[in-house]
Amino acid sequence: MAYGIDYLLENFALEQAVLKYCTAVDKLDDLDFMMTNFTEDAVLDLTGLELPRFEGHEQIRGFYTQVFADVSHHMHVLTNFRTVKLEGDDAQIHAYVTGMGRSKAGIDMQVFVYYDLDMRKVDGTWKIGRFYEAPQLPMPESVAQVHKKN
Amino acid sequence: MAYGIDYLLENFALEQAVLKYCTAVDKLDDLDFMMTNFTEDAVLDLTGLELPRFEGHEQIRGFYTQVFADVSHHMHVLTNFRTVKLEGDDAQIHAYVTGMGRSKAGIDMQVFVYYDLDMRKVDGTWKIGRFYEAPQLPMPESVAQVHKKN
Amino acid sequence: MAYGIDYLLENFALEQAVLKYCTAVDKLDDLDFMMTNFTEDAVLDLTGLELPRFEGHEQIRGFYTQVFADVSHHMHVLTNFRTVKLEGDDAQIHAYVTGMGRSKAGIDMQVFVYYDLDMRKVDGTWKIGRFYEAPQLPMPESVAQVHKKN
Repeated sequence: MAYGIDYLLENFALEQAVLKYCTAVDKLDDLDFMMTNFTEDAVLDLTGLELPRFEGHEQIRGFYTQVFADVSHHMHVLTNFRTVKLEGDDAQIHAYVTGMGRSKAGIDMQVFVYYDLDMRKVDGTWKIGRFYEAPQLPMPESVAQVHKKN
Repeated sequence: MAYGIDYLLENFALEQAVLKYCTAVDKLDDLDFMMTNFTEDAVLDLTGLELPRFEGHEQIRGFYTQVFADVSHHMHVLTNFRTVKLEGDDAQIHAYVTGMGRSKAGIDMQVFVYYDLDMRKVDGTWKIGRFYEAPQLPMPESVAQVHKKN
Repeated sequence: MAYGIDYLLENFALEQAVLKYCTAVDKLDDLDFMMTNFTEDAVLDLTGLELPRFEGHEQIRGFYTQVFADVSHHMHVLTNFRTVKLEGDDAQIHAYVTGMGRSKAGIDMQVFVYYDLDMRKVDGTWKIGRFYEAPQLPMPESVAQVHKKN
């Protein structure tokens, strides 16, 4: 398959958008910056991790408010980034993420997941419209301990 | 060193080709898709892992048939991708792979290897002509337990 | 944000430059090749790891001489590469590195850090002018055991 320049540029912009999300979740202290990653009607679907599904900025912000309150260290390692669909201002992304962190309670987490994202270009900027992740390798117990406590 | 657009496009196409191989080995259920990654005369040389060397589609397909039968989870994390040679329709790739998985017998594997691949462009698509991998870090026992049992 | 071709080419050249550093530190046997990664006036600031700060080629070469003498295996996995500043021949890079290795004394190391690098283009080639790294996740004891012994 041959790729052209325009495809390369869009793929790069999409990867930068997903890296920006990783940066935001790893900063752990800037909810406004986090929310710039999501479209207004975004769905954050964590049912693949046996966690809830959040719809819209208010619910999504609420989730990250809790995450940032619970976690002291984060590192989301993004690899195997692939644009599996690109149609105008809509795209679908698959990628691997090794998600690591330590909770303020001292629990270390390490999960091996894939991301399946619908991206939408809003005013020239790619944002996440649907965020889904699920285990690529079997999950450890630590995630439920930290994120399901409420 | 300055890179031009044509180099960037070929490097991207090569990386997509290697990512496609990772996707195929992690799907664990589509041998036909796996075989599209290899040239007809490909060599899969696993002697760097103290495993056999396979020549041609029949032997290579046989190997992955066994792998897919033995393994329940796979995740091949591709990083440090470098095109070390690019001459027309021939290229050589170096990359790191953190290869993880769980066998159906319940053995967890995690290996840290480098890939050294010869790629050939066939009808406009990059395929693997020679696949070699070897440990970048010392190997654990688990790999031999899963893959050398026969 | 829209990216253009020139930005893509520079970002690629910068990533290749940082990958080249990773290759050099993982080869463990070529000090001259290692030193081609650094500008003449480079600063290698490891204070974020509670290790020293080295200025100029002589001091930096001295550090890697010791590293190469102490370590038998290295693997520096580079991900989440971002060009956070690009102004002519100056750039700033953020990236994640999972740094792994085994010392000749048999100690296994695994650290999860971020790189914060100032890059400068010298005769058309990006080199490291300021190298800073610090833990993204809490550090294990193993690093101090291997690198602080003198």
